[in-house]
Amino acid sequence: MMASSTSGVSAPPSVRGLARARLDGRVVLVRIAQGQATVLATESGHPAADVLREALGTGAWRADGDAGGATVPVGDLELLAPVANPSKILCVGLNYLDHADESGVQAPAKPLLFAKFPNALRADGAVVEVPKDISGELDYEGELAVVIGRRASHVGRDEALDHVLGYVAANDLSARDAQFSDGQWLRGKSADGFCPVGPVVVPAEDVADPQALRIVTRLNDQVVQDGSTAEMIFSVAEIISYASHYMTLEPGDLILTGTPPGVGFARKPPLLVQNGDVVTVTVEGIGSVANRVLVV
Amino acid sequence: MMASSTSGVSAPPSVRGLARARLDGRVVLVRIAQGQATVLATESGHPAADVLREALGTGAWRADGDAGGATVPVGDLELLAPVANPSKILCVGLNYLDHADESGVQAPAKPLLFAKFPNALRADGAVVEVPKDISGELDYEGELAVVIGRRASHVGRDEALDHVLGYVAANDLSARDAQFSDGQWLRGKSADGFCPVGPVVVPAEDVADPQALRIVTRLNDQVVQDGSTAEMIFSVAEIISYASHYMTLEPGDLILTGTPPGVGFARKPPLLVQNGDVVTVTVEGIGSVANRVLVV
Repeated sequence: MMASSTSGVSAPPSVRGLARARLDGRVVLVRIAQGQATVLATESGHPAADVLREALGTGAWRADGDAGGATVPVGDLELLAPVANPSKILCVGLNYLDHADESGVQAPAKPLLFAKFPNALRADGAVVEVPKDISGELDYEGELAVVIGRRASHVGRDEALDHVLGYVAANDLSARDAQFSDGQWLRGKSADGFCPVGPVVVPAEDVADPQALRIVTRLNDQVVQDGSTAEMIFSVAEIISYASHYMTLEPGDLILTGTPPGVGFARKPPLLVQNGDVVTVTVEGIGSVANRVLVV
Repeated sequence: MMASSTSGVSAPPSVRGLARARLDGRVVLVRIAQGQATVLATESGHPAADVLREALGTGAWRADGDAGGATVPVGDLELLAPVANPSKILCVGLNYLDHADESGVQAPAKPLLFAKFPNALRADGAVVEVPKDISGELDYEGELAVVIGRRASHVGRDEALDHVLGYVAANDLSARDAQFSDGQWLRGKSADGFCPVGPVVVPAEDVADPQALRIVTRLNDQVVQDGSTAEMIFSVAEIISYASHYMTLEPGDLILTGTPPGVGFARKPPLLVQNGDVVTVTVEGIGSVANRVLVV
């Protein structure tokens, strides 16, 4: 299933949702169901090209097969990261009590926000190449991520989920040495390739309860995290509402909602990501994002 | 000089450099010199529209009047933030020894990186509206900012400045209560409007030495910071080289290089930004960015 450092993999037949994909030399947004992909839009040549974000602007993402888009077998697609150039990748730290405990810190009283940048995004199946000089302490964090569908500014908790386009699996890869030596987490969290996300965005209307999803992370074949979004300290709705009071959330923005316990640095002994390891994050009903890490 | 929360001001006649501006109902990139502005490009309708970033992609920013662009008096322009949707706004913390000292912390051994998002950007002259519930402790930080002109990945210190398009004045507005209570600085640093920048990008070839620029910050009429980029712990070249080993820097990216001493929270007694105050950051030879802060 592993491909090059920039490209993803063919879509597995069971995938269902919105995907960004390469098809016949162009990048397209498709809606996938029952092994078929309907082409909704073609990505622009803009420096911040991102066909999902672009289609959220035009409304093209709502179109169905009747709108005239071609339909192709999903096997013809090479899936890419579903978001490519969001205005922000917002992350929530320490959002599971047992993860705060294993990290040796108090659970935060409010959502603890930090950032990644688009350079960190990678597709399901893409190889994450990590130069050996940037970290000796690579770790995984399996997470449920949210894609914003409608601008959100100062929204209340009760209306927050109306601003969600859908959900996707994500891996908040972390260089623990950089993260902890700086105190500020950006350098250890936003290196190139440190935000694998995919394979598709499952529309919110197809997710009965985002607070009842099992999250399983595997390091090669070993289950290293097995939690549930039911255990979040701050729910998806609370995170969106809270963040939106500080920063306007834009369509296409990505929010990583925190990781359950079981991360590598907190284990005794530590279980860190080594050259050649594959990390697979599976969010129940949403999908799996799997990436080999190569230290180069 | 103060305008609405979204728009800037007319260009002062002495301005020289690359500007993003509103002209006859469209947004354009102009090169300003001797009171005249040459139109180089028109901003797209992309959700991440940013005519400077777009023109860096096409090369249009290099064009001169001979390329056929219209020339208009600068007084006809309404200047906007020169960057609008960079892929990243990278900031350096504690990059002046006396500022680290006044903050009560050790100077970092390596550049300390943190983030803002594009929602924070505001033009020179724009009002920064801060909802009263998000902070009771607003502070200013005058800084030299760098606009990246060419992609930079793993660049050495000697070649780092080749990747600089130019320089601009910036104000790293900070909500100290949010910044310090979270530990992670994002929430206190990237609220809407917390990154005024402008008025223009002065091309690197017009800046003899970026490490010999005086930075003066005024709170209303009082000089509150008076430093020099000569006092940076890590030079512009060192910051770019270092950051580029972790995250690929893209054309149009903005880097705030840290603030000299004199910030409000560290004063005895503290001198914080109050409703109606105007903060003006002047970087010698680069320009002044002035913004009124309204607590709403």
